[in-house]
Amino acid sequence: MEIKIRKPDDFHVHLRTGDLLTTVLPCTANVFSRALVMPNANPPILTAEDAKQYRQEILRLAPAGFEPLMTIKLTDYTKPEMVRQAKKAGVIALKAYPAGVATNSQDGIPDFLALYSVFEEMAKVGMVLSIHGEKPGVNCLYAEEEFLPTLKDIAETFPRLKIVMEHITTGAAVKTISGLPDNVSATITAHHLHLTFSDVVSDKIRPHNFCWPIAKTVENRRALILAATSGNQKFFFGSDSAPHLRLKKESAEASPGIFSAPVALLLLATIFEERNALDRLENFVSRFGAEFYGLSLNEGSISLVPKLTEIPKEIAGIVPFMAGEKLLWGVEG
Amino acid sequence: MEIKIRKPDDFHVHLRTGDLLTTVLPCTANVFSRALVMPNANPPILTAEDAKQYRQEILRLAPAGFEPLMTIKLTDYTKPEMVRQAKKAGVIALKAYPAGVATNSQDGIPDFLALYSVFEEMAKVGMVLSIHGEKPGVNCLYAEEEFLPTLKDIAETFPRLKIVMEHITTGAAVKTISGLPDNVSATITAHHLHLTFSDVVSDKIRPHNFCWPIAKTVENRRALILAATSGNQKFFFGSDSAPHLRLKKESAEASPGIFSAPVALLLLATIFEERNALDRLENFVSRFGAEFYGLSLNEGSISLVPKLTEIPKEIAGIVPFMAGEKLLWGVEG
Repeated sequence: MEIKIRKPDDFHVHLRTGDLLTTVLPCTANVFSRALVMPNANPPILTAEDAKQYRQEILRLAPAGFEPLMTIKLTDYTKPEMVRQAKKAGVIALKAYPAGVATNSQDGIPDFLALYSVFEEMAKVGMVLSIHGEKPGVNCLYAEEEFLPTLKDIAETFPRLKIVMEHITTGAAVKTISGLPDNVSATITAHHLHLTFSDVVSDKIRPHNFCWPIAKTVENRRALILAATSGNQKFFFGSDSAPHLRLKKESAEASPGIFSAPVALLLLATIFEERNALDRLENFVSRFGAEFYGLSLNEGSISLVPKLTEIPKEIAGIVPFMAGEKLLWGVEG
Repeated sequence: MEIKIRKPDDFHVHLRTGDLLTTVLPCTANVFSRALVMPNANPPILTAEDAKQYRQEILRLAPAGFEPLMTIKLTDYTKPEMVRQAKKAGVIALKAYPAGVATNSQDGIPDFLALYSVFEEMAKVGMVLSIHGEKPGVNCLYAEEEFLPTLKDIAETFPRLKIVMEHITTGAAVKTISGLPDNVSATITAHHLHLTFSDVVSDKIRPHNFCWPIAKTVENRRALILAATSGNQKFFFGSDSAPHLRLKKESAEASPGIFSAPVALLLLATIFEERNALDRLENFVSRFGAEFYGLSLNEGSISLVPKLTEIPKEIAGIVPFMAGEKLLWGVEG
């Protein structure tokens, strides 16, 4: 049974720069019409000017019709004026990651509420705050849950600020976000609907399943699946596809990040089918995110067909998520 | 300040076979007079005859004066008669590892209390039961704690059986073992006195710090340090030194096991010094274990001297624990 859905968006992707960008961009752009591009390039995207240049670099390589949605990184040095300039340049979100918890995040922000004037300006001009919600220095299994009070603080202090908590991994986050007003939403990745902690660390350590936030228990995964398939518009798709060369993963210090772009939509179809919720897939990947960000919906459609699809073992030096595994869905058109 | 201690024993080591044995044996035998050799070779050491042959293989390569203490693996197929034969062949312990929780443990035993007649025979002939205490199928952070009721069951059912719970990693295990009668003791590794979970999984995954049981929290580590330096004869040293080639560690499926033999005694000296307990180091590494196993104490001594010692980055394709780091102690004589 073929299903046809409106062309989807990916509201969280790491496209990198240079050779890596060239490799990974088609994996996203061939499936998703738009993608919210994370600013943790090296050097990071901090200003309107940075974002313009990065956008140009992406567009030079992108297939026709693909639209990168740009972000800048929130730091201690971000000023209200920079928010206004970014807005004028077409940037739609500021991305916050606590120090030390994401790739190239060494200068991440230490104290969210110290950025009062920046958040005020964002609320005023309609700029979204996109948060990697993990408390620094906390055991990785509990870091997300311990961040939730901070999320509540920000949401209550700035009721007009739109906030996305990204790549949630816990039932506690689902509950907190469900209970907050409409200005707060969350993205969910495909891989967090599939993995548990044991897929990362058990009889072996599997670095290609290692990402931030780390996958949690079966119970938490169930809560995420229920949220994603619930039809609640607060929960929408962001892949957090984050490529690293094989050599950076299979190493003495394996970097976090899962390159899910080549498999994400097929995996979502599989999971939604298992939950008998294929009719809700379009809302999750093509509607709720766009509506939260205040964007028009994509034109055109994409067809998912039942077709045994083998995930490549490697793509130009990068091992994709579920490499070598077979999925029951394929993309057409 | 030089300290001289009686030649030490390592009551838990993986020496492997073939080329790997040739590489790692001197790292153990140059420091320790005796070592209890784990039977998870490939194929495993299951009988008196296997143990004799494995012992000969080790002795052919060992420096003069080194004594391998042999074990056989406890399985569903172990019979009381095999215990008697092993005892006659000089085997001193049966090693139990629950299915799936150690290297080459695919055929580990599923049900300890089903081995009633074997445990009875072991108690009768004075064979030690050496247990890898983790409950299969449980999240690695909790698997040891959830095994403790089984340990208690065995200890209470067979009060004359000597039992060593190996490489303990939790305060709960310290407490349980402290509260059980004198027939139950535990080994503690050097690396578990040093690592916490964050050294394995945090901003990066560090496969060379990955072992079973996985390192736990700071609080658990403190409990282990207190037990090791307490002077309680129930707690003695077993390195669990477990070499894997670099390629098996820096891979898509990293094997558990830390090759600590080249650094273990120096690291112990550092940790005991920090606790102002250098006077208790000899009991921990050279006395309590031998006494528990009913062995005479070693002759001769070894000197530890304050000397900046850099751990090699690699030894014949194996990355040792703390590779490239500097310790404040060295070995002489």
